Amino acid sequence: MTGASERVRPAIGVAILGFGRMGQLHAGNLDARRETFHLVGVADVTAAAAAEAGARGIEFSDDWRTLIHRPTVDAVLVCSPSPMHAEQAIEAAQAGRHVFCEKPLDTTLAGIDRMLQAADGAGVVLQTGFNRRADRNFEALRNRARHGDVGKPYLLRITSRDPAPQALEYLRGSGGIFLDMAIHDFDLARYLMGSDIVAVSATGGAIVDPEIAEIGDVDTAITTLTFANGAVGVIDNCRKATYGYDQRVELHGEKGMLAADNEVSTTVSLSDESGLHRPPLPNFFLDRYGDAYARELDAFAAAIGGAEVLASGRDGRQAVAVAFAAKRALDERRTVRLAEILEGSPS
Amino acid sequence: MTGASERVRPAIGVAILGFGRMGQLHAGNLDARRETFHLVGVADVTAAAAAEAGARGIEFSDDWRTLIHRPTVDAVLVCSPSPMHAEQAIEAAQAGRHVFCEKPLDTTLAGIDRMLQAADGAGVVLQTGFNRRADRNFEALRNRARHGDVGKPYLLRITSRDPAPQALEYLRGSGGIFLDMAIHDFDLARYLMGSDIVAVSATGGAIVDPEIAEIGDVDTAITTLTFANGAVGVIDNCRKATYGYDQRVELHGEKGMLAADNEVSTTVSLSDESGLHRPPLPNFFLDRYGDAYARELDAFAAAIGGAEVLASGRDGRQAVAVAFAAKRALDERRTVRLAEILEGSPS
Amino acid sequence: MTGASERVRPAIGVAILGFGRMGQLHAGNLDARRETFHLVGVADVTAAAAAEAGARGIEFSDDWRTLIHRPTVDAVLVCSPSPMHAEQAIEAAQAGRHVFCEKPLDTTLAGIDRMLQAADGAGVVLQTGFNRRADRNFEALRNRARHGDVGKPYLLRITSRDPAPQALEYLRGSGGIFLDMAIHDFDLARYLMGSDIVAVSATGGAIVDPEIAEIGDVDTAITTLTFANGAVGVIDNCRKATYGYDQRVELHGEKGMLAADNEVSTTVSLSDESGLHRPPLPNFFLDRYGDAYARELDAFAAAIGGAEVLASGRDGRQAVAVAFAAKRALDERRTVRLAEILEGSPS
Amino acid sequence: MTGASERVRPAIGVAILGFGRMGQLHAGNLDARRETFHLVGVADVTAAAAAEAGARGIEFSDDWRTLIHRPTVDAVLVCSPSPMHAEQAIEAAQAGRHVFCEKPLDTTLAGIDRMLQAADGAGVVLQTGFNRRADRNFEALRNRARHGDVGKPYLLRITSRDPAPQALEYLRGSGGIFLDMAIHDFDLARYLMGSDIVAVSATGGAIVDPEIAEIGDVDTAITTLTFANGAVGVIDNCRKATYGYDQRVELHGEKGMLAADNEVSTTVSLSDESGLHRPPLPNFFLDRYGDAYARELDAFAAAIGGAEVLASGRDGRQAVAVAFAAKRALDERRTVRLAEILEGSPS
Repeated sequence: MTGASERVRPAIGVAILGFGRMGQLHAGNLDARRETFHLVGVADVTAAAAAEAGARGIEFSDDWRTLIHRPTVDAVLVCSPSPMHAEQAIEAAQAGRHVFCEKPLDTTLAGIDRMLQAADGAGVVLQTGFNRRADRNFEALRNRARHGDVGKPYLLRITSRDPAPQALEYLRGSGGIFLDMAIHDFDLARYLMGSDIVAVSATGGAIVDPEIAEIGDVDTAITTLTFANGAVGVIDNCRKATYGYDQRVELHGEKGMLAADNEVSTTVSLSDESGLHRPPLPNFFLDRYGDAYARELDAFAAAIGGAEVLASGRDGRQAVAVAFAAKRALDERRTVRLAEILEGSPS
Repeated sequence: MTGASERVRPAIGVAILGFGRMGQLHAGNLDARRETFHLVGVADVTAAAAAEAGARGIEFSDDWRTLIHRPTVDAVLVCSPSPMHAEQAIEAAQAGRHVFCEKPLDTTLAGIDRMLQAADGAGVVLQTGFNRRADRNFEALRNRARHGDVGKPYLLRITSRDPAPQALEYLRGSGGIFLDMAIHDFDLARYLMGSDIVAVSATGGAIVDPEIAEIGDVDTAITTLTFANGAVGVIDNCRKATYGYDQRVELHGEKGMLAADNEVSTTVSLSDESGLHRPPLPNFFLDRYGDAYARELDAFAAAIGGAEVLASGRDGRQAVAVAFAAKRALDERRTVRLAEILEGSPS
Repeated sequence: MTGASERVRPAIGVAILGFGRMGQLHAGNLDARRETFHLVGVADVTAAAAAEAGARGIEFSDDWRTLIHRPTVDAVLVCSPSPMHAEQAIEAAQAGRHVFCEKPLDTTLAGIDRMLQAADGAGVVLQTGFNRRADRNFEALRNRARHGDVGKPYLLRITSRDPAPQALEYLRGSGGIFLDMAIHDFDLARYLMGSDIVAVSATGGAIVDPEIAEIGDVDTAITTLTFANGAVGVIDNCRKATYGYDQRVELHGEKGMLAADNEVSTTVSLSDESGLHRPPLPNFFLDRYGDAYARELDAFAAAIGGAEVLASGRDGRQAVAVAFAAKRALDERRTVRLAEILEGSPS
Repeated sequence: MTGASERVRPAIGVAILGFGRMGQLHAGNLDARRETFHLVGVADVTAAAAAEAGARGIEFSDDWRTLIHRPTVDAVLVCSPSPMHAEQAIEAAQAGRHVFCEKPLDTTLAGIDRMLQAADGAGVVLQTGFNRRADRNFEALRNRARHGDVGKPYLLRITSRDPAPQALEYLRGSGGIFLDMAIHDFDLARYLMGSDIVAVSATGGAIVDPEIAEIGDVDTAITTLTFANGAVGVIDNCRKATYGYDQRVELHGEKGMLAADNEVSTTVSLSDESGLHRPPLPNFFLDRYGDAYARELDAFAAAIGGAEVLASGRDGRQAVAVAFAAKRALDERRTVRLAEILEGSPS
């Protein structure tokens, strides 16, 4: 009986490596999908992580290697700091575990290539944590674009602004605005356009906070893209938007324009003698993308079951390459072709 | 240690009476609140209900009386057909169980009065299933109105339209548009205005489907309200709206107007040569009010813990009285004072 | 040569009776249509009117009778106080002048009937100044409704709120909210629905200003309508709306809903930490309906040329009858059939 | 008496040079401002222009030099083809006539410099026809930005898309997308930001129509700007937008974001089973900017009376320089500093 057999399919055993904000978020989403996933345990090295796991009744380990080799572990969520991604993902893959890895996969293309090779060699899924692909609005926009609603694409526009800059200390180790923040938009651009980025230019400055210039970064950037299909794109990023987490997309083409506007916190407005007033946008990425974080785990389960990976390892690699190109373009005040970045690195 | 003791507070044991669409919905929401609620079992008399409970691994009983007396049962959700509400709620209350009862509490004021007496006598919570009070938009509007955003209220406007009429067979036993559909809006009007309804008039017709006239009902109705605070209100209901489940509110007053617009299914629009196009509204009440159904259970738990009841038994009674007044007003083509309905019935 | 002959068609000679706010507004619109209209002169009895005419270089007379008989006068715009409408319109019609008369045509149905008879007898146009019919939004909505966009109509909703109450002195002589303010909406309802109103009920109060109760009027009213085609309607009027002149319409039917939203003063919004803010609505009826006042003169010229009258004398009569019915319904707290009002008065 | 003396101030005598689409448009707006302007005559060389002037009863000349020296001519509107602008404007200025000149002032900076010198030398007004500065929305946005609504500016975003490409023949002589189309946006950027543009980069392609590549132009372009105040900007232009003439602005800064959305043709929407539908945007620049064209003439009259010029000759020069920079940036795939363009040309 099909229905019954579906119900008895065993849950996917999962280990979470790194039990900070993202690890904890995924743990909650796994729990709400208990028929699909079974959380075997989490590994981290901090007392805070151990305490949180204890409070949630989750098995904790300070030895991630042992954890991922537990026979009940089928898949690993890599939520640790970026420098650990490659090592953990590679060992997990070599052990035959499917891997879900937060972005960036690694901060070097060489490291990412080793991750891809490990996953390919082991025949396991490697999914990159590009949650925007699982956002219902962006997914709908992309499906309609694929369906031909705008015909031949001309121009893609992404606005992506954070409510407020993170602490300077965080930013210092973040890899810069392109690798830390815009990387989501680079991937989203490829996803929505269905075409690779072939050239990049960038303009920007430390306009919000001059101290950001001192650490060699910018806080406001406009990145322009040329796609393999001939279309162009532009992404504007800013580390500060008082009105909330601003996440919008427009895809303009031959037959029209698809737009995905911001989600609202409530639909309530007040009209008074000074005009009409709506509440601020959701201010926190976990509010804005709460559903998307859950849905990317559904996609991970589906990929383990054989479906196409929502955001593959190659997708993760391309986004990092675009981030490198954008940084070079900004520094050298010229258009940088992706091939410049990719050459010398096995593709 | 406060935190620890909060974590160990035992979950509220719950029995669900009636395991149809609403009972199943609540079961899912209870499950997502396992730290707060423990679902002891469900009672129903149909094979389909038994099968569904089995598939979900929920204990099933065809004897609701026995179930509610189980010592682990602290509270009962009455989700059975309306004619059974009073008997089940009264017996549960007399057994010391807190009661959450779907609307209408009963189809007679006398029956409701017995329910209120039973709950008052036993000192248990009696909450009416007016989920709109738990909708984030309406709740925000009401809080802002209370906070004085519109000053003295002048005029309340509620639009409440279903995507499509339910089957004639259902409508025949529904008690009519006022008791079945508009009752939610009558309660919402009292909730948002913070004042009782004192007079009602109504206009309407079987405009969508003439067959509805044959069962003595209308499918389109405009009900006007006068509140105790002097403000007026209007509710327009229709059994059919091709563009989705239309649920909007405006509260206009001295200082301005608060409005709660419809939720959208996605924020994606298409602009093409024929104009700008947005997707239809959510079409199903479970989509539109999914969060509200979950949040009314949170409110039930809070009420058991001593908080004010979100929608009390008296609220349930008042809404039924307004429905009776609206029906009489429509039939007699005149304004009907609530006192006409309430007199002769202990208040 | 057709083009040439069109250009040489002589302009319509116009006399304006009453040179207050409306008369002056029409004079400006006539001037912008100099190829169509020629303003022969204006008649009024106040020094202010004479001064304003002088400043504009317009011939002024304090004897309207003489003015309308000037041989170059083809048409008369009656913009005087309501009590003078009937006498002036009748004499102008009997003199063979086309008549455009502001609302209400007269404050009695008997008076209006004499006006209609005079115009019919003389074979001249009698147009009522229901400017909303010439608003581009309402006209578009009506055309789409006629074209079948909503299929069979179910429910019409009109919101019509003034920014602030006029002076009590004005209100005292205004004929009440239904005859002074809602009359526009009664006509608009008939226009948009394409069907006559057959029954009316009303709820309201002096909620904005209790002093309005002392002059026997209300400042907030909800009027419900039943149309000959079986559809229902509701109009909500309020003498005060801090956020501007609120003029909206919705027509809901079998296939969907057409809505005409408010015009905006600018499209500029500000998003800041307290949310998104738009400017108030246009605050003055001349701002909101500036185009409509001009377009109703174009329609008058077209009617003189043989086209259907935008708002006929009968339309003016029906709106007054609905206003009487609404007043009676409010007073007697019951639904009033239009036939009650119309009987005893030749139709 | 002040009022009287204001009324008798003589109207400004105007000659229009070039009586094509723009000249005819201005003639209509002058006529509606008869108290301010007196149209002495128009000069052009085509039979069509002569016929149109005749039909409107406007004096026509095929000799612009003679016309501008007529003693009743106080000011000249230069609406001829771009190559004639400089010669006509210089001769008019030298004759002491105030000059309003359509964009681009000239297609060389040297030519523009001669125009500026002539106007400065003669002490006459030289206004550039940048109508967007007179648009009520953009003007409101700029006033609010100046007033500090967004605080320190971070990022300006302009979208400017035409409904459909003009004929290839027109485009061939247009000077390219930057000088012909984006020039309006370059000026608007300076106007809204209140700061000069110091560097430009550009990305684009002949995506709409490959034939446009053959004439050395692009039809879709993304231009990024760096302002003297440190802020950045981006303009996206496209020669085709099926949904209408798309003209939007966002100014994002420290305290929030000001946005000017598109104007709508009507406020009417239809909601049906396929969603909510609004009509297309106004499709024609004369519809979108009709008011702005009229208001820029009011500003011209005010400048003649001593007020600040809405868009000065220097503004016209800067916009042309930015267009040159954008073209060079696109060709050389690098960021171009304005100083590169301006050096060698007297500023």
